[in-house]
Amino acid sequence: METVPPKTIKVLQQPTSAAWVEQAIAHLDIILLDHSHCERKAAGVALNLMFRYPSSAKLVRSLTAIAQEELAHFEQVNQWLDRRGIPLAPLSAPPYGAGLTAQIRHQEPLRMLDSLLVSGLIEARSHERLGLLGTHCPDPELAAFYRGLMASEARHYGVYWTLATTYFDRNVVEQRLEELAQIESELLSTLHPEPRIHS
Amino acid sequence: METVPPKTIKVLQQPTSAAWVEQAIAHLDIILLDHSHCERKAAGVALNLMFRYPSSAKLVRSLTAIAQEELAHFEQVNQWLDRRGIPLAPLSAPPYGAGLTAQIRHQEPLRMLDSLLVSGLIEARSHERLGLLGTHCPDPELAAFYRGLMASEARHYGVYWTLATTYFDRNVVEQRLEELAQIESELLSTLHPEPRIHS
Repeated sequence: METVPPKTIKVLQQPTSAAWVEQAIAHLDIILLDHSHCERKAAGVALNLMFRYPSSAKLVRSLTAIAQEELAHFEQVNQWLDRRGIPLAPLSAPPYGAGLTAQIRHQEPLRMLDSLLVSGLIEARSHERLGLLGTHCPDPELAAFYRGLMASEARHYGVYWTLATTYFDRNVVEQRLEELAQIESELLSTLHPEPRIHS
Repeated sequence: METVPPKTIKVLQQPTSAAWVEQAIAHLDIILLDHSHCERKAAGVALNLMFRYPSSAKLVRSLTAIAQEELAHFEQVNQWLDRRGIPLAPLSAPPYGAGLTAQIRHQEPLRMLDSLLVSGLIEARSHERLGLLGTHCPDPELAAFYRGLMASEARHYGVYWTLATTYFDRNVVEQRLEELAQIESELLSTLHPEPRIHS
Protein backbone atom coordinates (compact mmCIF):
# COMPACT_ATOMS: atom_id res chain seq x y z
CA MET A 1 0.00 0.00 0.00
CA GLU A 2 1.38 3.39 -0.97
CA THR A 3 0.45 6.43 1.00
CA VAL A 4 1.42 10.07 0.85
CA PRO A 5 4.27 10.83 3.25
CA PRO A 6 3.39 13.30 6.00
CA LYS A 7 4.94 16.78 5.78
CA THR A 8 8.67 16.51 6.40
CA ILE A 9 9.18 18.96 9.20
CA LYS A 10 6.16 17.63 11.07
CA VAL A 11 7.97 14.35 11.70
CA LEU A 12 10.67 16.07 13.76
CA GLN A 13 9.59 16.30 17.36
CA GLN A 14 11.80 19.26 18.23
CA PRO A 15 13.12 21.98 15.94
CA THR A 16 16.86 22.66 15.74
CA SER A 17 18.08 25.14 18.35
CA ALA A 18 19.40 28.60 17.61
CA ALA A 19 22.62 27.43 19.29
CA TRP A 20 23.23 24.93 16.49
CA VAL A 21 22.72 27.60 13.83
CA GLU A 22 25.17 29.87 15.61
CA GLN A 23 27.75 27.08 15.96
CA ALA A 24 27.37 26.02 12.32
CA ILE A 25 27.63 29.53 10.87
CA ALA A 26 30.74 30.15 13.00
CA HIS A 27 32.39 27.01 11.57
CA LEU A 28 31.18 26.83 7.99
CA ASP A 29 34.35 25.12 6.74
CA ILE A 30 34.00 22.24 9.18
CA ILE A 31 30.28 22.03 8.43
CA LEU A 32 31.06 21.74 4.71
CA LEU A 33 33.62 19.00 5.34
CA ASP A 34 31.19 17.16 7.60
CA HIS A 35 28.48 17.59 4.99
CA SER A 36 30.74 15.86 2.47
CA HIS A 37 31.08 12.91 4.86
CA CYS A 38 27.30 12.89 5.40
CA GLU A 39 26.58 12.61 1.68
CA ARG A 40 29.05 9.75 1.27
CA LYS A 41 27.61 8.00 4.33
CA ALA A 42 24.08 8.45 3.03
CA ALA A 43 25.10 6.79 -0.25
CA GLY A 44 26.74 4.00 1.77
CA VAL A 45 23.62 3.42 3.86
CA ALA A 46 21.41 3.20 0.76
CA LEU A 47 23.82 0.76 -0.86
CA ASN A 48 24.02 -1.35 2.30
CA LEU A 49 20.25 -1.67 2.36
CA MET A 50 20.33 -2.74 -1.30
CA PHE A 51 22.86 -5.43 -0.34
CA ARG A 52 20.79 -6.55 2.62
CA TYR A 53 17.48 -6.79 0.74
CA PRO A 54 18.54 -7.71 -2.81
CA SER A 55 15.16 -9.26 -3.68
CA SER A 56 13.00 -6.31 -2.61
CA ALA A 57 12.59 -4.81 -6.07
CA LYS A 58 10.95 -1.55 -5.05
CA LEU A 59 13.50 -0.92 -2.30
CA VAL A 60 16.38 -1.70 -4.67
CA ARG A 61 14.99 0.60 -7.37
CA SER A 62 14.28 3.51 -5.02
CA LEU A 63 17.58 3.25 -3.16
CA THR A 64 19.61 3.01 -6.37
CA ALA A 65 18.24 6.43 -7.26
CA ILE A 66 18.94 7.77 -3.77
CA ALA A 67 22.52 6.44 -3.76
CA GLN A 68 23.14 8.03 -7.15
CA GLU A 69 21.80 11.36 -5.96
CA GLU A 70 23.82 11.28 -2.72
CA LEU A 71 26.96 10.62 -4.76
CA ALA A 72 26.13 13.56 -7.01
CA HIS A 73 25.72 15.77 -3.91
CA PHE A 74 28.95 14.37 -2.46
CA GLU A 75 30.66 15.53 -5.65
CA GLN A 76 29.05 18.96 -5.44
CA VAL A 77 29.98 19.45 -1.78
CA ASN A 78 33.54 18.38 -2.62
CA GLN A 79 33.64 21.05 -5.32
CA TRP A 80 32.74 23.58 -2.63
CA LEU A 81 35.56 22.24 -0.46
CA ASP A 82 37.94 22.63 -3.41
CA ARG A 83 36.76 26.16 -4.02
CA ARG A 84 37.35 27.12 -0.41
CA GLY A 85 40.70 25.34 -0.26
CA ILE A 86 39.50 22.87 2.37
CA PRO A 87 41.35 19.56 1.97
CA LEU A 88 39.42 16.31 2.25
CA ALA A 89 40.08 14.88 5.70
CA PRO A 90 38.52 12.44 8.13
CA LEU A 91 36.30 13.99 10.81
CA SER A 92 35.04 12.39 14.02
CA ALA A 93 31.33 11.63 13.91
CA PRO A 94 28.95 13.20 16.45
CA PRO A 95 26.99 10.74 18.65
CA TYR A 96 23.83 11.27 16.56
CA GLY A 97 24.28 8.54 13.89
CA ALA A 98 25.46 5.87 16.31
CA GLY A 99 22.69 6.82 18.75
CA LEU A 100 20.05 6.30 16.08
CA THR A 101 21.64 3.13 14.72
CA ALA A 102 21.55 1.68 18.23
CA GLN A 103 17.75 1.87 18.04
CA ILE A 104 17.57 -0.47 15.05
CA ARG A 105 16.21 -3.80 16.27
CA HIS A 106 18.23 -6.83 15.20
CA GLN A 107 15.48 -9.20 14.15
CA GLU A 108 13.83 -9.06 10.74
CA PRO A 109 11.48 -7.69 9.61
CA LEU A 110 11.79 -5.11 12.40
CA ARG A 111 15.34 -4.40 11.35
CA MET A 112 14.16 -3.36 7.91
CA LEU A 113 11.42 -1.14 9.31
CA ASP A 114 13.76 0.58 11.76
CA SER A 115 16.53 0.98 9.17
CA LEU A 116 14.15 2.70 6.75
CA LEU A 117 12.74 4.98 9.44
CA VAL A 118 16.13 5.93 10.88
CA SER A 119 17.36 6.84 7.39
CA GLY A 120 14.15 8.79 6.81
CA LEU A 121 14.56 10.72 10.06
CA ILE A 122 18.17 11.61 9.23
CA GLU A 123 17.02 12.90 5.84
CA ALA A 124 14.23 14.90 7.49
CA ARG A 125 16.67 16.48 9.95
CA SER A 126 19.15 17.18 7.16
CA HIS A 127 16.36 18.88 5.23
CA GLU A 128 15.62 21.11 8.23
CA ARG A 129 19.26 21.95 8.90
CA LEU A 130 20.28 22.58 5.29
CA GLY A 131 17.25 24.88 5.18
CA LEU A 132 18.60 26.77 8.20
CA LEU A 133 22.01 27.04 6.53
CA GLY A 134 20.23 28.22 3.38
CA THR A 135 18.63 31.01 5.42
CA HIS A 136 21.49 32.02 7.71
CA CYS A 137 24.66 31.37 5.68
CA PRO A 138 26.37 34.73 5.01
CA ASP A 139 27.75 33.60 1.61
CA PRO A 140 24.76 34.03 -0.72
CA GLU A 141 26.04 31.49 -3.27
CA LEU A 142 26.65 28.83 -0.64
CA ALA A 143 23.26 29.64 0.90
CA ALA A 144 21.63 29.06 -2.49
CA PHE A 145 23.47 25.74 -2.79
CA TYR A 146 22.06 24.63 0.58
CA ARG A 147 18.55 25.64 -0.41
CA GLY A 148 18.98 23.63 -3.61
CA LEU A 149 19.92 20.48 -1.70
CA MET A 150 17.09 20.90 0.81
CA ALA A 151 14.45 19.74 -1.64
CA SER A 152 16.29 16.45 -2.27
CA GLU A 153 16.55 15.69 1.42
CA ALA A 154 12.79 16.16 1.77
CA ARG A 155 12.23 13.89 -1.22
CA HIS A 156 14.56 11.26 0.26
CA TYR A 157 12.62 11.38 3.50
CA GLY A 158 9.49 10.72 1.43
CA VAL A 159 11.12 7.76 -0.33
CA TYR A 160 12.09 6.12 2.97
CA TRP A 161 8.62 6.71 4.37
CA THR A 162 6.98 5.31 1.25
CA LEU A 163 9.24 2.23 1.37
CA ALA A 164 8.36 1.70 5.04
CA THR A 165 4.63 1.83 4.23
CA THR A 166 5.18 -0.46 1.23
CA TYR A 167 6.55 -3.26 3.37
CA PHE A 168 4.75 -2.54 6.67
CA ASP A 169 1.31 -1.60 7.88
CA ARG A 170 0.86 2.14 8.08
CA ASN A 171 -0.17 2.09 11.75
CA VAL A 172 2.95 0.14 12.66
CA VAL A 173 5.08 2.61 10.68
CA GLU A 174 3.53 5.68 12.27
CA GLN A 175 3.85 4.36 15.81
CA ARG A 176 7.49 3.34 15.39
CA LEU A 177 8.31 6.57 13.60
CA GLU A 178 6.98 8.54 16.54
CA GLU A 179 9.12 6.55 18.98
CA LEU A 180 12.24 7.00 16.87
CA ALA A 181 11.52 10.69 16.25
CA GLN A 182 11.36 11.19 20.00
CA ILE A 183 14.80 9.65 20.40
CA GLU A 184 16.12 11.58 17.41
CA SER A 185 15.17 14.89 19.02
CA GLU A 186 16.59 13.81 22.38
CA LEU A 187 19.92 12.99 20.73
CA LEU A 188 20.12 16.58 19.51
CA SER A 189 18.81 18.22 22.69
CA THR A 190 22.34 18.84 23.97
CA LEU A 191 24.51 20.60 21.42
CA HIS A 192 27.58 18.48 20.59
CA PRO A 193 30.68 20.64 21.20
CA GLU A 194 32.14 19.85 17.76
CA PRO A 195 30.33 21.59 14.90
CA ARG A 196 28.66 19.02 12.66
CA ILE A 197 25.57 18.79 10.44
CA HIS A 198 24.09 16.64 13.21
CA SER A 199 25.79 18.19 16.29
CA MET B 1 53.00 10.52 -11.77
CA GLU B 2 50.33 9.66 -14.31
CA THR B 3 51.02 7.13 -17.00
CA VAL B 4 48.95 5.64 -19.77
CA PRO B 5 47.40 2.33 -18.71
CA PRO B 6 48.55 -0.67 -20.73
CA LYS B 7 46.02 -2.22 -23.12
CA THR B 8 43.27 -3.87 -21.11
CA ILE B 9 43.28 -7.39 -22.47
CA LYS B 10 47.09 -7.56 -22.26
CA VAL B 11 46.91 -7.50 -18.46
CA LEU B 12 44.99 -10.78 -18.36
CA GLN B 13 47.41 -13.68 -18.30
CA GLN B 14 44.98 -16.22 -19.77
CA PRO B 15 42.00 -15.60 -22.02
CA THR B 16 38.56 -16.88 -21.01
CA SER B 17 37.89 -20.44 -22.13
CA ALA B 18 35.33 -21.47 -24.75
CA ALA B 19 33.75 -23.57 -21.98
CA TRP B 20 32.80 -20.40 -20.08
CA VAL B 21 31.22 -18.86 -23.17
CA GLU B 22 29.20 -22.03 -23.73
CA GLN B 23 28.10 -22.16 -20.09
CA ALA B 24 27.15 -18.47 -20.05
CA ILE B 25 25.17 -18.54 -23.30
CA ALA B 26 23.30 -21.63 -22.06
CA HIS B 27 22.29 -19.78 -18.87
CA LEU B 28 21.79 -16.19 -19.95
CA ASP B 29 19.12 -15.48 -17.33
CA ILE B 30 21.41 -16.47 -14.46
CA ILE B 31 24.27 -14.54 -16.05
CA LEU B 32 22.07 -11.45 -16.20
CA LEU B 33 21.08 -11.83 -12.56
CA ASP B 34 24.71 -12.35 -11.55
CA HIS B 35 25.69 -9.36 -13.64
CA SER B 36 23.25 -7.24 -11.65
CA HIS B 37 24.95 -8.38 -8.43
CA CYS B 38 28.37 -7.64 -9.96
CA GLU B 39 27.43 -4.05 -10.78
CA ARG B 40 26.10 -3.45 -7.28
CA LYS B 41 29.20 -5.04 -5.77
CA ALA B 42 31.47 -2.93 -7.97
CA ALA B 43 29.70 0.22 -6.72
CA GLY B 44 30.10 -1.08 -3.16
CA VAL B 45 33.82 -1.69 -3.60
CA ALA B 46 34.39 1.80 -5.00
CA LEU B 47 32.43 3.33 -2.12
CA ASN B 48 34.32 1.26 0.45
CA LEU B 49 37.63 2.53 -0.91
CA MET B 50 36.29 6.09 -0.68
CA PHE B 51 35.46 5.42 2.99
CA ARG B 52 38.86 3.89 3.66
CA TYR B 53 40.88 6.69 2.03
CA PRO B 54 38.73 9.79 2.59
CA SER B 55 41.68 12.19 2.29
CA SER B 56 43.01 10.88 -1.03
CA ALA B 57 41.36 13.51 -3.23
CA LYS B 58 42.14 11.96 -6.59
CA LEU B 59 40.99 8.51 -5.47
CA VAL B 60 37.80 9.95 -4.00
CA ARG B 61 37.03 11.92 -7.15
CA SER B 62 37.73 9.04 -9.54
CA LEU B 63 35.87 6.45 -7.51
CA THR B 64 32.84 8.70 -7.03
CA ALA B 65 32.50 8.69 -10.81
CA ILE B 66 33.01 4.91 -10.99
CA ALA B 67 30.45 4.24 -8.25
CA GLN B 68 27.92 6.44 -10.06
CA GLU B 69 28.51 4.62 -13.32
CA GLU B 70 28.25 1.18 -11.72
CA LEU B 71 24.93 2.20 -10.16
CA ALA B 72 23.70 3.36 -13.57
CA HIS B 73 24.70 -0.01 -15.05
CA PHE B 74 23.07 -1.81 -12.13
CA GLU B 75 19.87 0.01 -13.02
CA GLN B 76 20.20 -0.90 -16.69
CA VAL B 77 20.86 -4.57 -15.98
CA ASN B 78 17.85 -4.59 -13.65
CA GLN B 79 15.73 -3.21 -16.49
CA TRP B 80 16.85 -6.20 -18.57
CA LEU B 81 15.87 -8.52 -15.71
CA ASP B 82 12.44 -6.85 -15.61
CA ARG B 83 12.04 -7.20 -19.34
CA ARG B 84 12.83 -10.91 -19.20
CA GLY B 85 10.64 -11.46 -16.13
CA ILE B 86 13.60 -12.50 -13.97
CA PRO B 87 12.94 -11.55 -10.34
CA LEU B 88 15.72 -10.00 -8.28
CA ALA B 89 17.13 -12.71 -6.04
CA PRO B 90 20.29 -13.47 -4.09
CA LEU B 91 22.83 -15.66 -5.89
CA SER B 92 25.80 -17.49 -4.40
CA ALA B 93 29.12 -15.93 -5.40
CA PRO B 94 31.73 -17.96 -7.30
CA PRO B 95 35.14 -18.37 -5.56
CA TYR B 96 36.70 -15.72 -7.82
CA GLY B 97 36.05 -12.56 -5.77
CA ALA B 98 36.97 -14.08 -2.42
CA GLY B 99 40.05 -15.67 -3.99
CA LEU B 100 41.26 -12.30 -5.22
CA THR B 101 40.34 -10.47 -2.02
CA ALA B 102 42.43 -13.00 -0.08
CA GLN B 103 45.47 -11.67 -1.97
CA ILE B 104 45.06 -8.16 -0.59
CA ARG B 105 47.79 -7.59 1.98
CA HIS B 106 46.60 -6.22 5.30
CA GLN B 107 49.20 -3.56 5.95
CA GLU B 108 49.03 -0.09 4.44
CA PRO B 109 50.10 1.17 1.97
CA LEU B 110 50.23 -2.30 0.40
CA ARG B 111 46.57 -2.78 1.14
CA MET B 112 45.71 0.24 -0.99
CA LEU B 113 47.91 -0.91 -3.85
CA ASP B 114 46.47 -4.42 -3.84
CA SER B 115 42.89 -3.19 -3.50
CA LEU B 116 43.26 -0.93 -6.53
CA LEU B 117 44.91 -3.65 -8.62
CA VAL B 118 42.39 -6.35 -7.66
CA SER B 119 39.54 -4.02 -8.62
CA GLY B 120 41.34 -3.19 -11.86
CA LEU B 121 41.81 -6.86 -12.72
CA ILE B 122 38.14 -7.62 -12.08
CA GLU B 123 37.20 -4.74 -14.39
CA ALA B 124 39.63 -6.03 -17.04
CA ARG B 125 38.14 -9.53 -16.86
CA SER B 126 34.62 -8.12 -16.95
CA HIS B 127 35.58 -6.16 -20.05
CA GLU B 128 36.79 -9.35 -21.73
CA ARG B 129 33.75 -11.41 -20.72
CA LEU B 130 31.13 -8.79 -21.57
CA GLY B 131 32.88 -8.56 -24.92
CA LEU B 132 32.46 -12.32 -25.38
CA LEU B 133 28.79 -12.04 -24.45
CA GLY B 134 28.51 -9.16 -26.92
CA THR B 135 29.86 -11.44 -29.65
CA HIS B 136 28.14 -14.72 -28.79
CA CYS B 137 24.80 -13.70 -27.25
CA PRO B 138 22.00 -14.89 -29.58
CA ASP B 139 19.71 -11.95 -28.65
CA PRO B 140 21.06 -9.09 -30.81
CA GLU B 141 19.67 -6.36 -28.55
CA LEU B 142 21.18 -7.90 -25.42
CA ALA B 143 24.44 -8.45 -27.30
CA ALA B 144 24.50 -4.75 -28.19
CA PHE B 145 23.89 -3.89 -24.53
CA TYR B 146 26.90 -5.98 -23.51
CA ARG B 147 29.09 -4.36 -26.13
CA GLY B 148 27.98 -0.97 -24.83
CA LEU B 149 29.04 -1.80 -21.27
CA MET B 150 32.38 -3.24 -22.38
CA ALA B 151 33.89 0.16 -23.01
CA SER B 152 33.12 1.31 -19.45
CA GLU B 153 34.76 -1.73 -17.93
CA ALA B 154 37.93 -1.01 -19.92
CA ARG B 155 37.82 2.62 -18.78
CA HIS B 156 37.35 1.53 -15.16
CA TYR B 157 40.36 -0.73 -15.45
CA GLY B 158 42.28 2.32 -16.69
CA VAL B 159 41.10 4.41 -13.73
CA TYR B 160 42.25 1.81 -11.19
CA TRP B 161 45.58 1.47 -12.96
CA THR B 162 46.04 5.24 -13.07
CA LEU B 163 45.19 5.52 -9.36
CA ALA B 164 47.71 2.78 -8.55
CA THR B 165 50.44 4.65 -10.46
CA THR B 166 49.38 7.93 -8.82
CA TYR B 167 50.07 6.62 -5.33
CA PHE B 168 52.81 4.04 -6.09
CA ASP B 169 55.93 3.74 -8.19
CA ARG B 170 55.19 2.37 -11.64
CA ASN B 171 57.67 -0.51 -11.31
CA VAL B 172 56.08 -1.61 -8.05
CA VAL B 173 52.63 -1.44 -9.66
CA GLU B 174 53.65 -3.45 -12.70
CA GLN B 175 55.35 -6.17 -10.69
CA ARG B 176 52.45 -6.60 -8.28
CA LEU B 177 49.93 -6.47 -11.12
CA GLU B 178 51.71 -9.33 -12.84
CA GLU B 179 51.63 -11.43 -9.66
CA LEU B 180 47.94 -10.74 -9.11
CA ALA B 181 47.09 -11.31 -12.78
CA GLN B 182 48.72 -14.74 -12.54
CA ILE B 183 46.50 -15.63 -9.59
CA GLU B 184 43.45 -14.12 -11.31
CA SER B 185 43.90 -16.42 -14.30
CA GLU B 186 44.52 -19.43 -12.05
CA LEU B 187 41.26 -18.73 -10.21
CA LEU B 188 39.42 -19.04 -13.52
CA SER B 189 41.39 -22.00 -14.89
CA THR B 190 38.78 -24.47 -13.62
CA LEU B 191 35.27 -23.56 -14.73
CA HIS B 192 33.03 -23.06 -11.69
CA PRO B 193 29.99 -25.34 -12.09
CA GLU B 194 27.50 -22.53 -11.46
CA PRO B 195 27.22 -20.07 -14.36
CA ARG B 196 28.44 -16.66 -13.29
CA ILE B 197 30.14 -13.64 -14.89
CA HIS B 198 33.27 -14.81 -13.08
CA SER B 199 32.70 -18.61 -13.07
